Amino acid sequence: MDLTENTLESKLEYQGHIVTVRTDRVTLPNGGTATREVVSHPGGVAVVPLMEDGTVLMVRQYRYAFSQVLLEIPAGKLNPGEEPLPAAMRELEEEAGVVPEELIDLGAIYPSPGFCDETLYLYLAKGLTRTFCHPDDDEFLEVEAIPLDALIGQIMRNELSDAKSVAALLKTHLFLKE
Amino acid sequence: MDLTENTLESKLEYQGHIVTVRTDRVTLPNGGTATREVVSHPGGVAVVPLMEDGTVLMVRQYRYAFSQVLLEIPAGKLNPGEEPLPAAMRELEEEAGVVPEELIDLGAIYPSPGFCDETLYLYLAKGLTRTFCHPDDDEFLEVEAIPLDALIGQIMRNELSDAKSVAALLKTHLFLKE
Repeated sequence: MDLTENTLESKLEYQGHIVTVRTDRVTLPNGGTATREVVSHPGGVAVVPLMEDGTVLMVRQYRYAFSQVLLEIPAGKLNPGEEPLPAAMRELEEEAGVVPEELIDLGAIYPSPGFCDETLYLYLAKGLTRTFCHPDDDEFLEVEAIPLDALIGQIMRNELSDAKSVAALLKTHLFLKE
Repeated sequence: MDLTENTLESKLEYQGHIVTVRTDRVTLPNGGTATREVVSHPGGVAVVPLMEDGTVLMVRQYRYAFSQVLLEIPAGKLNPGEEPLPAAMRELEEEAGVVPEELIDLGAIYPSPGFCDETLYLYLAKGLTRTFCHPDDDEFLEVEAIPLDALIGQIMRNELSDAKSVAALLKTHLFLKE
């Protein structure tokens, strides 16, 4: 069956700082129509900074949408026109204060494909040299080096909830065992 | 350092079918203020339906936000007031046409904590009995049984992009090895 949905009309509902929202009328595979609400997001990058000693440089950051401090791998949005690889280098230095010798592609993930077009590009960073952190003006974060094995334990005990961190750390764990 | 951001004022920007958007003025740890754009989403559930033969019942579904058919584990939004466990049972039967003997908690993930409050509750379903699929009226999907090992291979070759599926399948893989 051809599952394609084609756009009949598109309406911009909200133009924000980070996201825009539109509602589109679409055709369905059975000839009917439906409304699709789509949140557009510029996309971003997320990086596992793996040190020689087996620790990962994790970031603690207040996430306003959840009213709590979350433990995450360094990450950030793509600037307009920016490619994922230089964005990953930039965020890695801004948030974790390190420069890598090697960035290994861990693939792209779609965090919420049911309603949002956000794509996140994941990387594993190795051969790290420390420089200094310089987060954005409205960004406050704390960096902590945590053993990869301990993070995998946290994930398997359901104690780590950030989806990109779960995906990238588990991929790193399996990648290193191959 | 206390990383908490407190709300000064909140403005509803968009009230949609699935999401709402608001912009809040918040206090920062350094005494300054900033604007936070928050997309609110009802949250959802996602389930790995693992058959006795080691295959997983995967769903192919057209995702309008990406203009492509994606391979995902069965999933769906929470209805108002609905608890995650019954929602997982409902989506499992609606989308994959199976009823489980056992649902194992694989934890909650936050797909996009930087701007969206969506929480997804992940489960592993075992002891499955086939009934029949009955997706929603505007939902068209195809179910395919794929060996878990083959899915892990796809994930490690960066061929599977749905974040909840990556997280839940990798957790299942490690869970079964413990």
